[in-house]
Amino acid sequence: MSDLAEEKRRSKSNLLILLLRLKGWVSATRSMASKTPVGFIGLGNMGNPMAKNLMKHGYPLIIYDVFPDACKEFQDAGEQVVSSPADVAEKADRIITMLPTSINAIEAYSGANGILKKVKKGSLLIDSSTIDPAISKELAKEAEKMGAVFMDAPVSGGVGAARSGNLTFMVGGVEDEFAAAQELLGCMGSNVVYCGAVGTGQAAKICNNMLLAISMIGTAETMNLGIRLGLDPKLLAKILNMSSGRCWSSDSYNPVPGVMDGVPSANNYQGGFGTTLMAKDLGLAQDSATSTKSPILLGSQAHQIYRMMCAKGYSKKDFSSVFQFLREEETF
Amino acid sequence: MSDLAEEKRRSKSNLLILLLRLKGWVSATRSMASKTPVGFIGLGNMGNPMAKNLMKHGYPLIIYDVFPDACKEFQDAGEQVVSSPADVAEKADRIITMLPTSINAIEAYSGANGILKKVKKGSLLIDSSTIDPAISKELAKEAEKMGAVFMDAPVSGGVGAARSGNLTFMVGGVEDEFAAAQELLGCMGSNVVYCGAVGTGQAAKICNNMLLAISMIGTAETMNLGIRLGLDPKLLAKILNMSSGRCWSSDSYNPVPGVMDGVPSANNYQGGFGTTLMAKDLGLAQDSATSTKSPILLGSQAHQIYRMMCAKGYSKKDFSSVFQFLREEETF
Amino acid sequence: MSDLAEEKRRSKSNLLILLLRLKGWVSATRSMASKTPVGFIGLGNMGNPMAKNLMKHGYPLIIYDVFPDACKEFQDAGEQVVSSPADVAEKADRIITMLPTSINAIEAYSGANGILKKVKKGSLLIDSSTIDPAISKELAKEAEKMGAVFMDAPVSGGVGAARSGNLTFMVGGVEDEFAAAQELLGCMGSNVVYCGAVGTGQAAKICNNMLLAISMIGTAETMNLGIRLGLDPKLLAKILNMSSGRCWSSDSYNPVPGVMDGVPSANNYQGGFGTTLMAKDLGLAQDSATSTKSPILLGSQAHQIYRMMCAKGYSKKDFSSVFQFLREEETF
Amino acid sequence: MSDLAEEKRRSKSNLLILLLRLKGWVSATRSMASKTPVGFIGLGNMGNPMAKNLMKHGYPLIIYDVFPDACKEFQDAGEQVVSSPADVAEKADRIITMLPTSINAIEAYSGANGILKKVKKGSLLIDSSTIDPAISKELAKEAEKMGAVFMDAPVSGGVGAARSGNLTFMVGGVEDEFAAAQELLGCMGSNVVYCGAVGTGQAAKICNNMLLAISMIGTAETMNLGIRLGLDPKLLAKILNMSSGRCWSSDSYNPVPGVMDGVPSANNYQGGFGTTLMAKDLGLAQDSATSTKSPILLGSQAHQIYRMMCAKGYSKKDFSSVFQFLREEETF
Repeated sequence: MSDLAEEKRRSKSNLLILLLRLKGWVSATRSMASKTPVGFIGLGNMGNPMAKNLMKHGYPLIIYDVFPDACKEFQDAGEQVVSSPADVAEKADRIITMLPTSINAIEAYSGANGILKKVKKGSLLIDSSTIDPAISKELAKEAEKMGAVFMDAPVSGGVGAARSGNLTFMVGGVEDEFAAAQELLGCMGSNVVYCGAVGTGQAAKICNNMLLAISMIGTAETMNLGIRLGLDPKLLAKILNMSSGRCWSSDSYNPVPGVMDGVPSANNYQGGFGTTLMAKDLGLAQDSATSTKSPILLGSQAHQIYRMMCAKGYSKKDFSSVFQFLREEETF
Repeated sequence: MSDLAEEKRRSKSNLLILLLRLKGWVSATRSMASKTPVGFIGLGNMGNPMAKNLMKHGYPLIIYDVFPDACKEFQDAGEQVVSSPADVAEKADRIITMLPTSINAIEAYSGANGILKKVKKGSLLIDSSTIDPAISKELAKEAEKMGAVFMDAPVSGGVGAARSGNLTFMVGGVEDEFAAAQELLGCMGSNVVYCGAVGTGQAAKICNNMLLAISMIGTAETMNLGIRLGLDPKLLAKILNMSSGRCWSSDSYNPVPGVMDGVPSANNYQGGFGTTLMAKDLGLAQDSATSTKSPILLGSQAHQIYRMMCAKGYSKKDFSSVFQFLREEETF
Repeated sequence: MSDLAEEKRRSKSNLLILLLRLKGWVSATRSMASKTPVGFIGLGNMGNPMAKNLMKHGYPLIIYDVFPDACKEFQDAGEQVVSSPADVAEKADRIITMLPTSINAIEAYSGANGILKKVKKGSLLIDSSTIDPAISKELAKEAEKMGAVFMDAPVSGGVGAARSGNLTFMVGGVEDEFAAAQELLGCMGSNVVYCGAVGTGQAAKICNNMLLAISMIGTAETMNLGIRLGLDPKLLAKILNMSSGRCWSSDSYNPVPGVMDGVPSANNYQGGFGTTLMAKDLGLAQDSATSTKSPILLGSQAHQIYRMMCAKGYSKKDFSSVFQFLREEETF
Repeated sequence: MSDLAEEKRRSKSNLLILLLRLKGWVSATRSMASKTPVGFIGLGNMGNPMAKNLMKHGYPLIIYDVFPDACKEFQDAGEQVVSSPADVAEKADRIITMLPTSINAIEAYSGANGILKKVKKGSLLIDSSTIDPAISKELAKEAEKMGAVFMDAPVSGGVGAARSGNLTFMVGGVEDEFAAAQELLGCMGSNVVYCGAVGTGQAAKICNNMLLAISMIGTAETMNLGIRLGLDPKLLAKILNMSSGRCWSSDSYNPVPGVMDGVPSANNYQGGFGTTLMAKDLGLAQDSATSTKSPILLGSQAHQIYRMMCAKGYSKKDFSSVFQFLREEETF
């Protein structure tokens, strides 16, 4: 127990390590032959079109979702639906999970009927959920004990990209297994990036979204200030975009209605990436920053701003609606 | 597993619940006769004087600390030293723990040689560590399974108050057991406040310290601004203290050297409550706010400021040194 | 013009100095006999009851307001109403001004029909408006050129305190003249504090209100977080108020409905100190901080929060309504 | 004086209007013949190479600077040096000013020996300084009274761009005069953008730099967090730059040493755009936001961060050194 002293400085994420260490599981070997069945757990807005793209590439699927209705479409199409993640693991040695939160991922892997209860030795487990990188690391450790390989592979791109197979996957895990992951992920995305050790896929996703939130709020504040100072919004956007203030939020997703076509701001902030989802990702960034003691002054403020927006009726609007949120005029 | 859907909205703290649910323990009955031995785990800067105050009140102690040196003084005084938290639980049915972080508390209670491994049925377990309230709730649940009662009772007041027996305890847990807790805590503190269900002691502590951090930084910013605008610091403090800007940081712990005697600012910010500790507590506040989706715009900023101070050489100074941190002049 | 190089480092407030230097005015001597007429300019919500308190103490008034209606009541009571600040200066050698913004104060003193156009040598000019301290200094300089004395004496306390003669005055200016100012201000306030050179009255006011805003928002965030963590609001307030988180906003003006009686939170945030006024004072704090290069991380954030509240329908509510603003729940 | 009521809602910038209204000046007509002498006031780091580019294009110059040494080089080259801005105005009917602060600009235009004291009717006055847009508007108004035209034309691009004639000019003022301004500015910059009414050039500059500061700090926080989470900095930058987090600060001016060549981060943050200058521009953004009541939560925080950096020894380093500032490790 003298290790304990050393651990004093480690972050809260380590709690999981201690708790999970008290457990154990059993195992088998992965068939590498292509077109053997692939397990898919989580058929929501994103998982549904992703799974369909795997089908288009000829992969038979073993399907599971907590909501049976979500599986019906696949059952009708002839895919095999089972009744727990453990059952998926029994029938497939390559499994993709696409779940909304860390807690769902833990349940799907380590729960009473989780994947790890029946996972075969040598299985490849790819988690495309966006969750805390500390949880990804922990799940990888548990998988390793069972002789399986766990990789984190969160996506960038929304439902549209999921449908057209143009997602970007940021992949963390053992480098030797990257090719195997790429075979499957390449059916669902046009861009599969290897990021490093397990957890770095999540880290890359979280980092990108934190910078995105900051630059989106910055763009909204700036456009609003410029307009109040008498600048035409289209002209201001043009000037920023040829100058050092340029960012994706200003040149490809401008939050000011009337500046660009085909973006949520042109459509009353419908579609796109919801404020609630951004608030969730910023919560993960905040947790990671707290546990690594990294100062994120603006990231932390961005988190609070999206949190407030959720409480003010913006939760389902695209995250660029922060312009509208800031824009409201004072009334006397 | 249809519960899972419900849980989707719950916070990350729930991870622990899922993970801990997979475990179990056994039990006995608590002797209520006064002056039976009391277990004490964690004899650091705070735990040491707290345990001594129990001794002064005639309680024999069963002692454990990960650092054997910390126990020596008590052994010399005739108290019994054992070699694990489990051993403490075997010999005492009232136990107090005073540990630096959430992870240490989990280890001491749920670890391989933790209290819960040998706890007697009916035991009273009081944790005076400052930790995440979600962990306190979880430990209480585990204790309950063993037939024991867990209460959280973090303290306010530093080493001085610990020595003089003037700590304030904020206690969360089953109300029926409060009197029993008070019997022991009253030996170490002058103020024992019942806060509600388990976890609310931590909540009260975290809330107080977040407001303290905010008002301390606010006082430092304000005093610095006033001085630069030509005000005499003592006069400014006097004006604030008779006006609506008054707060504990301005009237009892003023951060500006020369304004008050007997406070850390009068002694080069030595002693007092260290910046690192404040940063830690603000990290807990941040975690609680993220998991309850509470906006804390200033609390979050205060966290980042103390985080930066730690990186700039202020970690061991009293937290009122934020005045010095902000005060530094621009150099050209 | 070699002075210019030196001035490069000075703040924007100096602009006024340069501009005002180009001008000049003329003068006479102040009658010190008590109960000679006192000029009063600005009979709004605050000025009206203040002027009445002077009347109660037997001072004949010379009245002016840009809105003639505001003077009617005084005319009916037999006081003399004139048609410009210059006319007030012609008839009274002690003048009090109570105006809403810096610009109104400049107009009243330096405008085409301003006080300084006809001020008598030796006159005492007391400005109780809350304005930029840099403007107060500039007006004092101009007054001095005319042989008059200008003092800044902003108030703390609202309409109620103005009516009952219980305002606090924070006075900046030549110390020799403080007694003379006190004679008049003592009729309107129970507390007249000498703060130092001209401008320091404003500085003290601005500093107090900045710390007040910070601690009010901090209290609101803290109470909200505590409630979400399961604490009873009254109990939490009690704990904070006996601990280091204690501040005027928590113990005398608690923002949570149901915690205290007789405060705006008990009355749907009506009455009290309006959010718009707080936003105005924070704007002055921000300007002063920018020009003195003082970092105000929380002060600046507080300013932005009150600015947003004004845009979200809170402008006329008491500034403690920030609790309500933060409290709103997320809707899904 | 009933105007006053209306003005109550206007910003502090209006102070200048009132003060300047009290003054007056005299005038003549601008020679439009090309290659007549051009006045140039302010031969500092930026003004020097700008003036040289005008010379290269064959314009004789009439030179003035408060520091005579700054003029020597031009005198040696045969240009005419005079002893005040007024003298410049007497000899040239097209004048360019390039000065460090608002106060210097006011002195050069409205001072005792300012341009407006002897400006010829029909003169074109182009101010390339970065100053408060409210001051630009005021100077334009005064110039108009003298029958002259004032335009604001702040630059983007540093000393390198000034030397190579590749500056970007953002121009505000009467549209009819834009072609005349472009004739001169085109000799010094590769990009001359018309932004709208007078003051909008400044507004565009301030807006760009505020967004730049926000995205630079955001990039620094993000890169730091990612590195601490185990990502390789070059890989992280690559991922951001192909994703929605992409911004000029991440893809063209990355603040992390080792990620890019030829940027200040590759050279110990030397050269580039100094932290002090960024703090100054953010001060202008803050002033404009306060006076237009625009919420700038992140802009305001960025201002405070650069303010702190100036006090911590970063004032002369490039503004991308915020990465270094945040990066420092905690020491225990």
